Amino acid sequence: MGINLSNFLSSKSKNKKMMEFQDLDHLDGVSISTVCADLYQNPRDDLVMFYFRDGANYASLYTQSKIISENIKWNLNNKIKKVFSLVVNTRNANCFTGKQGYKSLEKIAELISLQLSEKQKEDEDQPKKIKPKEIIFGCTGTIGENFPEEKIKSKIPDLVNNIKYTQNKYIWMKAALGIMTTDTQPKMAMEYCSIGNSEIKIFGVAKGSGMIQPNMATTLGYVFTDADIPNDILKKLLKKNISNTFHAITCDGDTSTNDMVTIFSTGKAKHSKINNINDERIKEFDEALNKVLLNLAKRVVADGEGASKFITIKVQNCKTDIDAKKIAFSIANSPLVKTAIAGEDPNWGRIVMAIGKAGAFIDYEKLSIKFGEIFIIQNGKLNINYNESDVLEYMKNDNIDIEVDILSGSKNFTAFTMDLTKKYIEINADYRS
Amino acid sequence: MGINLSNFLSSKSKNKKMMEFQDLDHLDGVSISTVCADLYQNPRDDLVMFYFRDGANYASLYTQSKIISENIKWNLNNKIKKVFSLVVNTRNANCFTGKQGYKSLEKIAELISLQLSEKQKEDEDQPKKIKPKEIIFGCTGTIGENFPEEKIKSKIPDLVNNIKYTQNKYIWMKAALGIMTTDTQPKMAMEYCSIGNSEIKIFGVAKGSGMIQPNMATTLGYVFTDADIPNDILKKLLKKNISNTFHAITCDGDTSTNDMVTIFSTGKAKHSKINNINDERIKEFDEALNKVLLNLAKRVVADGEGASKFITIKVQNCKTDIDAKKIAFSIANSPLVKTAIAGEDPNWGRIVMAIGKAGAFIDYEKLSIKFGEIFIIQNGKLNINYNESDVLEYMKNDNIDIEVDILSGSKNFTAFTMDLTKKYIEINADYRS
Repeated sequence: MGINLSNFLSSKSKNKKMMEFQDLDHLDGVSISTVCADLYQNPRDDLVMFYFRDGANYASLYTQSKIISENIKWNLNNKIKKVFSLVVNTRNANCFTGKQGYKSLEKIAELISLQLSEKQKEDEDQPKKIKPKEIIFGCTGTIGENFPEEKIKSKIPDLVNNIKYTQNKYIWMKAALGIMTTDTQPKMAMEYCSIGNSEIKIFGVAKGSGMIQPNMATTLGYVFTDADIPNDILKKLLKKNISNTFHAITCDGDTSTNDMVTIFSTGKAKHSKINNINDERIKEFDEALNKVLLNLAKRVVADGEGASKFITIKVQNCKTDIDAKKIAFSIANSPLVKTAIAGEDPNWGRIVMAIGKAGAFIDYEKLSIKFGEIFIIQNGKLNINYNESDVLEYMKNDNIDIEVDILSGSKNFTAFTMDLTKKYIEINADYRS
Repeated sequence: MGINLSNFLSSKSKNKKMMEFQDLDHLDGVSISTVCADLYQNPRDDLVMFYFRDGANYASLYTQSKIISENIKWNLNNKIKKVFSLVVNTRNANCFTGKQGYKSLEKIAELISLQLSEKQKEDEDQPKKIKPKEIIFGCTGTIGENFPEEKIKSKIPDLVNNIKYTQNKYIWMKAALGIMTTDTQPKMAMEYCSIGNSEIKIFGVAKGSGMIQPNMATTLGYVFTDADIPNDILKKLLKKNISNTFHAITCDGDTSTNDMVTIFSTGKAKHSKINNINDERIKEFDEALNKVLLNLAKRVVADGEGASKFITIKVQNCKTDIDAKKIAFSIANSPLVKTAIAGEDPNWGRIVMAIGKAGAFIDYEKLSIKFGEIFIIQNGKLNINYNESDVLEYMKNDNIDIEVDILSGSKNFTAFTMDLTKKYIEINADYRS
């Protein structure tokens, strides 16, 4: 199935380091468990539980679609301070499933809370009674099919029994594999940083593949840290760092009903309290969180449906932030640009077309366009040294960097996307068959 | 090369009549001439002249891209009352060609005006001196390549010599073929109507294929009538009738730098003066013009790059016109919807996704979705009689009708598009090679 990410790992790739799998290990306060609930009718793990034995602070961002899935409704309805479990199922989006979909979640949450409360009694010195609303859900898969309540419920005992209090890279890998749909590769990232004298871990897993659009916390992305950060600051950090990471990627311009990015803070790494997002001690964490989110977001694009090339679109010196973003996404979402790159055709005229249709301010005579280090347009004119054979050679790379300089201001935006190939059509024309 | 439109002409097609070629004949006041200027380095006609021996009233609508081609700049700069010739070249968009591109048009216009003035002396009782600015240009093809001034200039004498004052369906066909780029079929349409006691002809030719987007008079469309209508009323009629025709189609969501739709009125059919767009006598003309534009627009979609199915998306009962249009185009431009239809997969969940991401007002519980005559969603729920095998059968049709009822207002919009196939990728990945 699908494209092998090793294309992106070739020695010529600049993103080599970024694309290598990292060895996520133990993160105190998180337990992971995966199981095959037969949702795909093949023997893969398709149901994943993240369990926080002492609860976790958390913050979520959701899709901006006007139609949202039942699990997102559930998560939004249950306003809680600490979450005890995140359960993610694949194959079924639980969207457009109406009351059946929502009620199924109620019943599943009830069962999970009972079983986890039992487990608390067995394992903890001060066992807590976990409430159904302290469970949140991630769902991904086909829209509009009946939600497989029974299949999922029947596997809850196994999920709870499988919980291990110590993780290693294999269990993280199993989690990242367990949340995949048409993804061809699991997506994981990690960073270390400090808060005061404490070493802090930030680990993340994500799934992507189709319906990847910038308007919201795209697809499923889950970030875990042992730092002790309150919910309101987690929310601010997440909002701030999503803008140039998950909000900077696009695969096909479509937006899911199920997008969800959540950060969980177990508080196991002891440090003095953080009460303010401007606290100097959080600066390093802030930067590390951005790296984790950017790493995951890039992996989502690199494994975008049918991707054969990873494309970075850097738009510089616009009048406004909005203009820079408009131009970057106009290029990133243009089927004509994306097919030209798939065909390794340096058809820069299509970049010009996409800049023109973006509706942003541009001064034709100041415009510059670079492919990699090769200047194509300078000051609105074809570079006199332009040599198509150089660009043809450049187009053979797996990583294509396009730089557009508008030279009319100081605002920049970088978007990430992939090419549009026949494989995309194949995957999506036959998705359900 | 490409898709055979006979798919759309099959007996099961509702659009059969629409899609048949019509026999355009003589239209008084227009002359057509075509020639091979070797722009494609193969022996096809690639340069077309429409000549109005007594001039023609006219009105144009152009692309809304911020980057426009040099010929559109030329047309906009030369504010004239009557136009004597429209010259259309293919293969080169004359966009991003800077001063060279514009100066070439000046020189070509000068040569044409000289030669047409000579022809006036030979053929007319009261010969007119035609000015360069009385010539307008349509250009279509690749962006950013040097404009082939010499090749075009060398063929102007042939173009002028080839002028015939009587047209038949073959010369119209040659004109429609001569303006094609990646089109696989020429696009022509005609209607008859009356103004007062005069019978009026409205003929049209168009080219489309890629970069077909609703934001403007998409692609090249030229409409000719022997009615006598002043420029300001032509402009109003064109603006009004473009909104549900050329502005209602999309192939890939990309917008050309060269879009141009123009109507020419030769005034040869004598009727009393029309001074007002609300004049009762113009009502029939107004309707016939809409039919010609809709016919051409549909042909552009049906021959969209790689199209195997013609898709009509009817969105009804929205709160506002803008909402209806947003939802229709969100569906029409969704790669996931278009690939599902290419795969004959009734994946209506993707329609739900596209409705959700449109950003328009919807009340989930009122939503209905129909494929053809088959109700899939009613009142926000899967229809209890829904039988996937019926819809699977329906998806095999060449014409797919999707109807979305929002049931929250009275505003409707219908968009036309085609499916997204591997052929699209093939055509666009290898466009220039």
